[in-house]
Amino acid sequence: MSQANLAIGVFDSGVGGLTVVRQLRRELPDEDILYLGDTARVPYGSKSPQTVLRYSRNNARFLLGRGVKLLVIACNTASAFGLPRLGEELPVQVLGAVEPGAREAVRATRTGRVGVIGTLGTIRSSSYRRAIAEVAPEVEVATQACPLFVPLAEEGWVDGDVARLTAERYLGELFGTLADIDTLVLGCTHYPLLRPLLAEVATRVAGREVTLVDSAGAMARATRVALEAAGLRRGGGAGRLTCYVTDAARIGEVGPRFLGEALTSVEEVDIDAGGQASAGG
Amino acid sequence: MSQANLAIGVFDSGVGGLTVVRQLRRELPDEDILYLGDTARVPYGSKSPQTVLRYSRNNARFLLGRGVKLLVIACNTASAFGLPRLGEELPVQVLGAVEPGAREAVRATRTGRVGVIGTLGTIRSSSYRRAIAEVAPEVEVATQACPLFVPLAEEGWVDGDVARLTAERYLGELFGTLADIDTLVLGCTHYPLLRPLLAEVATRVAGREVTLVDSAGAMARATRVALEAAGLRRGGGAGRLTCYVTDAARIGEVGPRFLGEALTSVEEVDIDAGGQASAGG
Repeated sequence: MSQANLAIGVFDSGVGGLTVVRQLRRELPDEDILYLGDTARVPYGSKSPQTVLRYSRNNARFLLGRGVKLLVIACNTASAFGLPRLGEELPVQVLGAVEPGAREAVRATRTGRVGVIGTLGTIRSSSYRRAIAEVAPEVEVATQACPLFVPLAEEGWVDGDVARLTAERYLGELFGTLADIDTLVLGCTHYPLLRPLLAEVATRVAGREVTLVDSAGAMARATRVALEAAGLRRGGGAGRLTCYVTDAARIGEVGPRFLGEALTSVEEVDIDAGGQASAGG
Repeated sequence: MSQANLAIGVFDSGVGGLTVVRQLRRELPDEDILYLGDTARVPYGSKSPQTVLRYSRNNARFLLGRGVKLLVIACNTASAFGLPRLGEELPVQVLGAVEPGAREAVRATRTGRVGVIGTLGTIRSSSYRRAIAEVAPEVEVATQACPLFVPLAEEGWVDGDVARLTAERYLGELFGTLADIDTLVLGCTHYPLLRPLLAEVATRVAGREVTLVDSAGAMARATRVALEAAGLRRGGGAGRLTCYVTDAARIGEVGPRFLGEALTSVEEVDIDAGGQASAGG
């Protein structure tokens, strides 16, 4: 099989990366996708860089074993702690969430002031701050960890009082730190589910219109560009999506909310026994 | 070393089990305790029975390798899915969270109607329902999964508007299901941190006084009884607490909130490589 006909590999700490898959399927409808959600060890956002890197290696090895032409790290925390390391170690190109999101934010801002929200790990890693500084050192950045947004999105509480008060508290902190922010990066795969609420609260708290940058969309566009540049685009036919998870308990219930369509092919796999991937579990 | 001089082993999915250690140190101040928090794979509450049992076996094997005379499963989800299996497999007595909590609730209720709150896994397992039915088949039970309480407790948001609204929503569901509940079981190690708020909201929503049963206290008392019955009480001297975690990222910050005192001895260990425990990470 020619390399261009291989699938795009996507891994995530859990189901959140399906928001990236959703964008990939819009941007590249003729590409096959192999998705791995590490639902047995989710979340990554509150764990150490060492743990997250170890899990990311496991995940990458599993997908490479199934044959992929390019690897997308959908999880922002795994991107923050896994790159550039995994890109150097692996025989395929590896794209993360942080750089595409940072570039898009720099393009979007008019005031030169950008806010970034994400998990504890992503924010503590300062990876968005560094990525933005590399592209546009003059842009000022404020960041805020929002640990409750992931459980709210998973519980499906995306627009009621609890979600609204939580958003007001986190975004109040963020916009209180730096005036004139006009661009907000949603630096976590779960946050697109809260997008309408975040747009409304951000605009209200900031007292001005705020552009939301969703790293899922940015990653999908970066993936298309990378495949085209490498001559790895697969032509014709509808792409297939194959999902693997390390724990199947909640994928049927939660997965479709993130993917935006039914999940037709899901298989549970055990990848944590010393990194030796095997089916079953 | 005589068996009575060995430590009590306690494992949990993460830091929440330190609320059980806190009660154990009050109830049995002269006993040594080895605690293992599986913080690299936390939480268990949303994962499948198979995954939780596999992790629980890993944890138990690690603690038995260090020498313990009795094993306490602090995590309600791990108790729900790991017992009675682990008790049959292991060479020491194993106590879980569910049975002591269930017995205490039966003793406390006057109306014969008990509410139980816990993680998705604990509630779906029906383990509290079964344990209560075994002791007192006439007692009626209503249950409610409360997935947001764990992240709220970990974020330290235990008394503000967000926590209050969340509690009102979950407890409103619970007390709406069954009238005249007078006893509420906190079926998760994190919930004692929300206790004052839960007591207030439960009483208001129920329109009557509601007794809160904290499984941590019940487990500590059950542990004392079990050690005395087996002639395994260690006399004299102040007991030492040794903590192991599989990911040390947040234990220093979050741990003391759960334990109620400073954590003096914490070591990070890697236990997930095919169940072979080794220090380092």
